[in-house]
Amino acid sequence: MDSIKSHSYEVHLNELAEAALRQHIAKNNYSKVFVLVDENTKEHCLPFFETILAHPIDAILEIQSGEINKTITTCVKLWNALSDEDGDRQSILINLGGGVLTDLGGFVASTFKRGIKFINIPTTLLSMVDASVGGKTGVDLGPLKNQIGVINQPQMVLVFPKFLNTLENRQLKSGYADMLMHGLIKDSEYWKNLVQDGNFADANCIMKSIALKNEVVLKDPTEQGIRKILNFGHTLGHAIESYFLEHPDKETLLHGEAIAIGMILEGYISHELKGLSKLSLQEIKEVFLRYFDKVDFDTNDIGAILELLSYDKKNSHGEVNFVLLQTIGTAITDVKVPEDIFQKAFAYYKEQ
Amino acid sequence: MDSIKSHSYEVHLNELAEAALRQHIAKNNYSKVFVLVDENTKEHCLPFFETILAHPIDAILEIQSGEINKTITTCVKLWNALSDEDGDRQSILINLGGGVLTDLGGFVASTFKRGIKFINIPTTLLSMVDASVGGKTGVDLGPLKNQIGVINQPQMVLVFPKFLNTLENRQLKSGYADMLMHGLIKDSEYWKNLVQDGNFADANCIMKSIALKNEVVLKDPTEQGIRKILNFGHTLGHAIESYFLEHPDKETLLHGEAIAIGMILEGYISHELKGLSKLSLQEIKEVFLRYFDKVDFDTNDIGAILELLSYDKKNSHGEVNFVLLQTIGTAITDVKVPEDIFQKAFAYYKEQ
Repeated sequence: MDSIKSHSYEVHLNELAEAALRQHIAKNNYSKVFVLVDENTKEHCLPFFETILAHPIDAILEIQSGEINKTITTCVKLWNALSDEDGDRQSILINLGGGVLTDLGGFVASTFKRGIKFINIPTTLLSMVDASVGGKTGVDLGPLKNQIGVINQPQMVLVFPKFLNTLENRQLKSGYADMLMHGLIKDSEYWKNLVQDGNFADANCIMKSIALKNEVVLKDPTEQGIRKILNFGHTLGHAIESYFLEHPDKETLLHGEAIAIGMILEGYISHELKGLSKLSLQEIKEVFLRYFDKVDFDTNDIGAILELLSYDKKNSHGEVNFVLLQTIGTAITDVKVPEDIFQKAFAYYKEQ
Repeated sequence: MDSIKSHSYEVHLNELAEAALRQHIAKNNYSKVFVLVDENTKEHCLPFFETILAHPIDAILEIQSGEINKTITTCVKLWNALSDEDGDRQSILINLGGGVLTDLGGFVASTFKRGIKFINIPTTLLSMVDASVGGKTGVDLGPLKNQIGVINQPQMVLVFPKFLNTLENRQLKSGYADMLMHGLIKDSEYWKNLVQDGNFADANCIMKSIALKNEVVLKDPTEQGIRKILNFGHTLGHAIESYFLEHPDKETLLHGEAIAIGMILEGYISHELKGLSKLSLQEIKEVFLRYFDKVDFDTNDIGAILELLSYDKKNSHGEVNFVLLQTIGTAITDVKVPEDIFQKAFAYYKEQ
C-alpha cells in the first residue's frame, strides 16, 4: 500500500517502512541513535525492530507504560538520561510504543536541546490511527490531559500491523473507537464498512483512518478550524477519561472506551441541536454498546465530569465548544451547548 | 528610531513600543492577559508597564529571580497557575523581566496547551541585546544551561531603556559583554565605538546590537551555520558559568562576566590557531579586564570546567566546536580545537 504524505514526512507501512527506516538512518549521520520503549514494547516489539533497524542502538531508554506516567517527571528522567548518554543536537530518538509513549517521547525530543529529531513507531491500534499524523506531542499536568506539549512533526511514522497481534482485545477496541469516529465525522461509507466487517485491525482500514485524519490536519495544522472535527466525542470523552484517571478506586477507562461514551453523549446532543436523525443516533449508540460495556455514572460522577469540562483545552473564552454531527459523515465545529442538555445526554446513555 | 523586523515580529523602542503594544492588545481579542514578573520587575517595572498597557491584567504571575530558579519546577508552578487562572489557547503571556524570565516565560507559553502567544519585554541590558531576537526559549536541567527548550517567536519585543536606570552597574556590565561580542564577531567599527564611548546603556547602541544579532539569526533560524558565530566566548564561557553555578561556595558569576572570560580564552585560541593578531588579542584582553575583575582559577577548577565542556549543547558527535576570530569583526565557526590548548589559554588569562 502507498505511503501517506503528511506535512513534512510520510507514514509508511510494513516493507516500505522497513526500507524507509534503513535508508533514513544510513543517509543521516546521526551522532547517537536512541530508542524509547516501555516494558511491553521492550518485550514484544524491540526484538523485531532491532532486526529491521540493522544499525547499532546507542542506548535503549525505558519508561513505565500507562497514562499515569505521562508526566513531566517522566520527561525529566528522560532528559537526564539523554544528557547522561551524551545526546546532542545531532541525535535521534525513535519512539516505539503506544500513544502515551509517542506523545511523551515526541515532546522530550522536541524540547531536548531545543529540539532533536524523532521517529514514531506506534505499536497500538489507537496510536497508529490517532497519533500517526498531526504532530501533537505532550504530557499531562495532574489530571489535565496533554496540558503541556508542542506541535512538532516526526521524521517519519512507521506502521507495522503485526505489532497488534500481541495486544489484548480491549486495547484493540480502544483504537477502533477512533476509527469509527473518523467515519462519523467524514466518511459514512467507511463507517458502514467498519461496522459491517468489524475487522478493524486490518492494514487497509488502519491506513484509511490515517489518510482520513491526514486530510484534515493538512488543511489545518494548528487547529484553528476544520481540524476541530477530530474532537467529536472527545470533549465529554476527555472529561470522563480524566475523571476516571483521577479516581483510582474506579475502574480505569481506556481512551477509546471514554470517547465511545463521549460519542454517544455528543451524538445525543447532535440529535437535539443539529438535526442528526433519531435513526442515526440509535445506530451510533447500538454500535458503540456492541463493543463497549455500559459504564455506571451516578449523580456525583456526572457533576464532577461536568466540572472538568471547563478545563478542557479546546475551550475558549470560558465557553465549551462542541463538534456535533448533522448526519453520519458530516460534522460541524464550534457549537455552544446549553448546560442543561448534559444531564439529558447522560440519561439517554443510561436508558435501555 | 525604527523598529527592527525579525522573523515574524518586530522589536520596538520606547514610544513605538507603547503604540505597538496597545494596538496589538486592542486588535487581538485575547481571552486572558497574563503578566509574568519577578520580585524586582514587580517593584521597578510593573507600575510603568501597567500605565502603558492601559488594559486590565487577568493575573500577575510571579517567580523568584535568578538562574537557580530557571528550572522545570518553576515551569510546573507556572503551568499550574495558568490552568488555575483558566488560561486557554487564546490567552497571552507577557514576560516582563531579564533573560531568565523571558527564556523561561517563553518556554512556558510555547508549551502550555501546545503553545499560547507571548510578548517579551526585556528589562536588563543583557536580555535586551541577547534575548530580543532569535526565538530561543528554555530552562536549565541541573547544571546544564538551557538544556530544555524550543525555538519559538514572540508576538513582539518591546525595549524601554529607562528600565536600565534601576539596575546595578554589575548587571549593566553583564550585558555590555554581549554587545562587545557583537562587535568582535561582525562589526569592528561598532567594537571601536563601544570601547571608546563606554556608553553602553544608550538606546542607539542597544538597537545596533539587536540589529546585528538579528541579521545573523534571520539568515539561520535553527543554528545550522552562520548563527553559531553568536557563540563566540560562550563555549568556554558557558562551562565557566555552569561550574560557578554548581558551586554555591564560589562567588556567582553573571552571564556576561563568564563570557568575558570566555572571550579572552577563545581570543587566545583564535590567536594560536586562526591568526588573530597579537595586538588584537591584547586589546580584547585589556578591554574585558577593564570592566571585569580577574577571577581566580585553580587546577581543580580548570579540570572541572573542561569536564563540563563535553556537555555543551553546541557539541556534536562528541567533539567540541569553537567559534574563533580571524580579525576583530570576522569570525569562523566549527573549529575543532586540540585539548592541550585550553591550559595555555587559562595561563594567558592569568598572566599579568
